[in-house]
Amino acid sequence: MFNIGKIAIIGGGSWATAIAKIVVNHTHHIGWYMRRDDRIEDFKRLGHNPAYLTSAHFNVDEIFFSSDLNKIAKAYDTLVFVTPSPYLKNHLKKLKTSIRDKFIVTAIKGIVPEENLVCSEYFHEVFDVPYENLSCIGGPSHAEEVALERLSYLTVACKDLMKAEAFTDILDSDVIKTKTSTDVTGIEYASVLKNVYAIAAGICNGLKYGDNFQAVLMSNAVQETSRFLDAVYPMERSIIDSVYLGDLLVTGYSNFSRNRTFGTMIGKGYSVKTAQIEMEMIAEGYYGTKCMKEINRHLHVNMPILDAVYNILYERINPQREIKLLTDSFR
Amino acid sequence: MFNIGKIAIIGGGSWATAIAKIVVNHTHHIGWYMRRDDRIEDFKRLGHNPAYLTSAHFNVDEIFFSSDLNKIAKAYDTLVFVTPSPYLKNHLKKLKTSIRDKFIVTAIKGIVPEENLVCSEYFHEVFDVPYENLSCIGGPSHAEEVALERLSYLTVACKDLMKAEAFTDILDSDVIKTKTSTDVTGIEYASVLKNVYAIAAGICNGLKYGDNFQAVLMSNAVQETSRFLDAVYPMERSIIDSVYLGDLLVTGYSNFSRNRTFGTMIGKGYSVKTAQIEMEMIAEGYYGTKCMKEINRHLHVNMPILDAVYNILYERINPQREIKLLTDSFR
Repeated sequence: MFNIGKIAIIGGGSWATAIAKIVVNHTHHIGWYMRRDDRIEDFKRLGHNPAYLTSAHFNVDEIFFSSDLNKIAKAYDTLVFVTPSPYLKNHLKKLKTSIRDKFIVTAIKGIVPEENLVCSEYFHEVFDVPYENLSCIGGPSHAEEVALERLSYLTVACKDLMKAEAFTDILDSDVIKTKTSTDVTGIEYASVLKNVYAIAAGICNGLKYGDNFQAVLMSNAVQETSRFLDAVYPMERSIIDSVYLGDLLVTGYSNFSRNRTFGTMIGKGYSVKTAQIEMEMIAEGYYGTKCMKEINRHLHVNMPILDAVYNILYERINPQREIKLLTDSFR
Repeated sequence: MFNIGKIAIIGGGSWATAIAKIVVNHTHHIGWYMRRDDRIEDFKRLGHNPAYLTSAHFNVDEIFFSSDLNKIAKAYDTLVFVTPSPYLKNHLKKLKTSIRDKFIVTAIKGIVPEENLVCSEYFHEVFDVPYENLSCIGGPSHAEEVALERLSYLTVACKDLMKAEAFTDILDSDVIKTKTSTDVTGIEYASVLKNVYAIAAGICNGLKYGDNFQAVLMSNAVQETSRFLDAVYPMERSIIDSVYLGDLLVTGYSNFSRNRTFGTMIGKGYSVKTAQIEMEMIAEGYYGTKCMKEINRHLHVNMPILDAVYNILYERINPQREIKLLTDSFR
């Protein structure tokens, strides 16, 4: 049996907070890296994250907070990374201690920009972490619902299934059900693509396509995901498992998805810049689209939805025209 | 090239009206069987169906209406059946003329009760129509959206692909895209099952399960459909095609679905009787659940969602308890 050791959370957003809550309920101690000291101070004073999931209360005596990533990385055995993918590289620049013997869990649904690598690949290539120490958490999981203790299903993937199982033991509860997988890379890519497809769903919604079309779009998105995963990382996988299909559906059908909202604004005619300013945040799928497009330049997988979203966001092609062309390619 | 001949629509509901509109736009003449003469008179006077899709206007000079099924069956070559499945048998009892040489298209998403046959099987077994003359229309298609000319994708299935293609030529337009398939039986069964799963989605919604769980439920529903189709009619099929997956999604995620609404009332604690009275109509999935349960008694496919819905609707098992058990079976 693999010993998961002491667990630390890296990141201070809503998904980080939801995972921290699940873990500390089980272990009664966690380390928690957050970038900003003022946030840490507020957290300690209030007993909850001051900025995200404010209704999730913590016993702060069970948490060792630090804004020093090296201190956390040294003192803890399992590091759960839950930062937005565009910021991961900057956080890790501060790292002066080796993490190659740590058990690394990424709950980041995104790609490391410029590198065009999913997070597990990035940790492997840049930080020399062997694949059997690299794990990811996937599955349909709005952080808000997890925090509200609405029943959710998570999948922990690792090449070494014993390690994945050890981590599911930490997550399992009455309201979190888990399973394991060895498809780390596939799950990570699928979770990036689903944000691209949520933007596509939003664009079509903004253009007044209806529910019949949305269902066809989602079906084609699953097919496109399947084709891509078969090309980038061939293995026996069932694309209709909830970790792939469910994760796409929860995002593509959610009105709370930032990516879908961003897409809806684009479909209604806002420019990318205006949509980003209005939303006061950047939808992760915006970066994901560019990264996936670049990755697929070498793989040449037939990905008409990805291409359409890329053309609309980065080539400024008129959404109405681009989506019309897309609909012709659908079956 | 197969000659589709003169086309008649059998049935007067919203999906019948939507299909009639598509067909007559193309052919400029249809026969149309409706049971009630008063409805026919109102239709002729108003220029639209008095009860369904009232915004869809017709040139009534292009329609030969009749409440005499035999007259329609004799005079037309292709008969498109679009009645609710529980009433199909009663309509057909009036038939005194052979239809075995007709091209039969069913757009009925349901099973013939008591017989426990999908419609194509029923036409084959009871009316001796050869399989190469039997066809069905599937795909995600809220009638209301089709009538509003929102882009929709339909699949026409027939053992004889030439005949399926001939019928898609009638449906194809700027707002209807079509494809063909040979999987008549599989598409019919999938369209029955999706109503069962829409009831399940409603029940879980009524019990306050969230979006994360809904995505897991839908993923498991696709897996269950796939297992059933492989058992009842094995063939090479891709369950993530829009005719299977998309049809499930459009119903399972729709707040306008009668089946989902019915399920929500059950989940909230209404009795089956009360829910049916409140809705002033009977959700087709209510019958579908019983038929599918009976069909599966011989096939023994692992169908935990079907079983749960059956237990709740027909065995009066408490929904909360039954769904709790179901969630334990999910992956």
